Amino acid sequence: MTFIRNRWYVAAWDGEVANAPLARMICNEPIVLYRKLDGTAVAMRDACPHRLLPLSMGMREGDNIRCKYHGMVITPEGKPCEMPLTHERVNEKITTPVYPVVEKHRYVWVWIGEPEKADENLVPDFWPCSAEGWVFDGGYMKVNCDYRLFIDNLMDLTHETYVHMGSIGQKELMEAPLETRVEGDEVFLSRWMPNIDPPPFWREALKKTGKVDRWQICQFIEPCSVIIDVGVSPVEAGDTLESHDSGVRGFVIDSMTPETETSCHYFWGMARNFDIHDAGVTARIKAGQDNIFNEDIEVLEGQQKNIALNPDMKLRVLSIDSGGAHARKIIERLMADA
Amino acid sequence: MTFIRNRWYVAAWDGEVANAPLARMICNEPIVLYRKLDGTAVAMRDACPHRLLPLSMGMREGDNIRCKYHGMVITPEGKPCEMPLTHERVNEKITTPVYPVVEKHRYVWVWIGEPEKADENLVPDFWPCSAEGWVFDGGYMKVNCDYRLFIDNLMDLTHETYVHMGSIGQKELMEAPLETRVEGDEVFLSRWMPNIDPPPFWREALKKTGKVDRWQICQFIEPCSVIIDVGVSPVEAGDTLESHDSGVRGFVIDSMTPETETSCHYFWGMARNFDIHDAGVTARIKAGQDNIFNEDIEVLEGQQKNIALNPDMKLRVLSIDSGGAHARKIIERLMADA
Amino acid sequence: MTFIRNRWYVAAWDGEVANAPLARMICNEPIVLYRKLDGTAVAMRDACPHRLLPLSMGMREGDNIRCKYHGMVITPEGKPCEMPLTHERVNEKITTPVYPVVEKHRYVWVWIGEPEKADENLVPDFWPCSAEGWVFDGGYMKVNCDYRLFIDNLMDLTHETYVHMGSIGQKELMEAPLETRVEGDEVFLSRWMPNIDPPPFWREALKKTGKVDRWQICQFIEPCSVIIDVGVSPVEAGDTLESHDSGVRGFVIDSMTPETETSCHYFWGMARNFDIHDAGVTARIKAGQDNIFNEDIEVLEGQQKNIALNPDMKLRVLSIDSGGAHARKIIERLMADA
Repeated sequence: MTFIRNRWYVAAWDGEVANAPLARMICNEPIVLYRKLDGTAVAMRDACPHRLLPLSMGMREGDNIRCKYHGMVITPEGKPCEMPLTHERVNEKITTPVYPVVEKHRYVWVWIGEPEKADENLVPDFWPCSAEGWVFDGGYMKVNCDYRLFIDNLMDLTHETYVHMGSIGQKELMEAPLETRVEGDEVFLSRWMPNIDPPPFWREALKKTGKVDRWQICQFIEPCSVIIDVGVSPVEAGDTLESHDSGVRGFVIDSMTPETETSCHYFWGMARNFDIHDAGVTARIKAGQDNIFNEDIEVLEGQQKNIALNPDMKLRVLSIDSGGAHARKIIERLMADA
Repeated sequence: MTFIRNRWYVAAWDGEVANAPLARMICNEPIVLYRKLDGTAVAMRDACPHRLLPLSMGMREGDNIRCKYHGMVITPEGKPCEMPLTHERVNEKITTPVYPVVEKHRYVWVWIGEPEKADENLVPDFWPCSAEGWVFDGGYMKVNCDYRLFIDNLMDLTHETYVHMGSIGQKELMEAPLETRVEGDEVFLSRWMPNIDPPPFWREALKKTGKVDRWQICQFIEPCSVIIDVGVSPVEAGDTLESHDSGVRGFVIDSMTPETETSCHYFWGMARNFDIHDAGVTARIKAGQDNIFNEDIEVLEGQQKNIALNPDMKLRVLSIDSGGAHARKIIERLMADA
Repeated sequence: MTFIRNRWYVAAWDGEVANAPLARMICNEPIVLYRKLDGTAVAMRDACPHRLLPLSMGMREGDNIRCKYHGMVITPEGKPCEMPLTHERVNEKITTPVYPVVEKHRYVWVWIGEPEKADENLVPDFWPCSAEGWVFDGGYMKVNCDYRLFIDNLMDLTHETYVHMGSIGQKELMEAPLETRVEGDEVFLSRWMPNIDPPPFWREALKKTGKVDRWQICQFIEPCSVIIDVGVSPVEAGDTLESHDSGVRGFVIDSMTPETETSCHYFWGMARNFDIHDAGVTARIKAGQDNIFNEDIEVLEGQQKNIALNPDMKLRVLSIDSGGAHARKIIERLMADA
């Protein structure tokens, strides 16, 4: 097992869950997601408790799903309310597992583990995804790698130089000093670049000339997310690593929900506090991220395959890997606990 | 193991076995089928006893097959009659297993198990496939599911309503009472619908207006067949569940020969005692069945995959599943015996 | 394990190894091949010692490869010479395995096993591939079979009659007596056809009419090569099986380097001492061989699959198989030794 149980996992973007059932495997469990007539999201095991046909092949009826095979009707509580023979007594012992669901920060979250432990307050605080004065959008990709390889990738920004050579890579990034810090179950990897010329993207966002302070702060949030605080502010504002709201700021929000031991669902996006009503900026950021993440996926899937082919070699931890290494240790400890 | 040994299995339609060798795996055993010059069907392990190349890649010579690799010639008895070097002494100890074969009721049957136990009288009595006054035709499909899931499917006609929603499904079928009966190693599932309006297909077959009695009697015949007796007769004829030959009658004849534990060969067809010289009726019935069975296959293959993905859930048996459940118990018992 | 360790294996044709890295798995080990600026071939494990991304995805820099992920630079000695953060101290303990390489007889050879045992003098003597007065060319194919099935195939020329029925097969070949001889770790299979009419290919090569003596001598060279000495000479020259240089002569040179237990790299070619400056003859021989070997591959891959499907049957050894059987015994013995 490579996942932490008893956790909320991003299962889908809010817009992906609709009237028609959506099938998605989370942490090795096949799940069907849909919305009730009142808009509430539902998550159940994607198997009719009668003969195990995927419920996602079925038909929606009111708040329920009617199985495509014998027509058993399953409620959002995972219980039958109509049997295959309409006159047959409903047997409520024949159930399909139901998953606690919360919709927050534009995501539909599903609780994997013991349902009675599900507490809405345990959903990670992705506040920039839903705060006043901010806008958030992004996309979804399926990636054939262990989600922890993806965390390693995001908790280290030096790879940008080579993996993203043709897009955002810059040799200068390699030179800025990095600071790694562990706080409880969170890991922070920070880089402060004082008094520099802003790169084109940020100059345009700031709408102002002159030198800036620039930052990149990667934060690992268990079980499987990385949030990267990025932005620039005018030097004269005197911002610091601890407090930097005088300029323009964004959060790259990434969740890598495990599908199986060797594949994951990648939910990526960016929240920002500038040009928030400009849909063109949103679209350009999304297109750029999509492009960049495809470069990462090529590397991650190559790495996943090659780890299996070279059982005598092991992943080495250099200083640049300390963020990912700390994250893995936290995952390891929480798996043992949960 | 999920198959009964020491049984006759449908290996092919009569027309599928010809001069050219046909490769077909039955119960995990690769078999090659062909006809001798006198028309008799032959079944052997599909492997040259010399270097194991499939004999089905070879060339027919008289009643024999010459292996494509080194030219060893194998007789229908599985023995060499010419060695790779023509002057070499024939070694009759180098043999390939041969399977008892019977051709009956338009099928080529192969005996899986101990050859000495093969008795032609043990071939199931599919009499409508070859009786005077009847015509029989059908088709073949390869299906990626355990053959027992297919038996479940055919021993329960309530699924028609949902699986065949767009073709033959009718809500009324769900309402007619069902009777399950076990007789020795056979299971019967019967439905008698007295004094009703015939559906279009049967009205046309009967060539007569007025109310009819209608029946559907599913019969499980071990190891892997289901025959469904269907038809209508005029109410005034006074037919009964036990005796109903006053109208028009058909038998849907289905055999699901195991290929592996998770795949089977589906031989389907219909025998009927009306319009027996009308090739157009035959063609329309075949086209209709082909269409309907593709709907079943979608469900069966979805079920097979999902059973593997949900190891913590199990198939539940409701009253509608009693036919299949009885059939599975009989299979279980006969597997232990055989 | 089905391979001999501590041996040289053909990894590639000389022309396949160039500036850009070439990925090839040899005996289950993923290897990257490339040439240094001075033209010397290099072979390393195809995995960056840092995070195991294939080095073949990386970028060449001077004689080194820079990993595409974090930019670690690996020298031809498998050691880092620049770390992901340029200011970080180079840690020479982080290495990737390096393979001894020799370039000889138009092939790049890689040593699998303990590097300290690699001795250039152990490379098999494929002299006709590089001797004065001879020309050598050929091709490469990936084949999904155990390399030993391929050795069986080449150490037996009777299969030509059936496998190559449409190309070079001739019934007469089956009639000529064969002689098998084991000399140390080599196996010879010889056929001398005195005083015959030469077939078209050889008549044209000889540029002379009249009866000829013809020979075919297959030689197994461990761990995985077969060389076939073929040709004709005028009867009046009085050539013998031991000495036959009065006419035209060729060597079919075949190496079947294991990729995995069930797949191999097939390097095939022909060296000849006639028309050596005629590129058209070279091209026609290559096209003909390519065609013929595709017929072999169909048989070999069919055999490989069928061996797995018929676990109750075993490969039988007839007199025609004695060449391959001796070769397998030698491989077995050397595997135990190595």
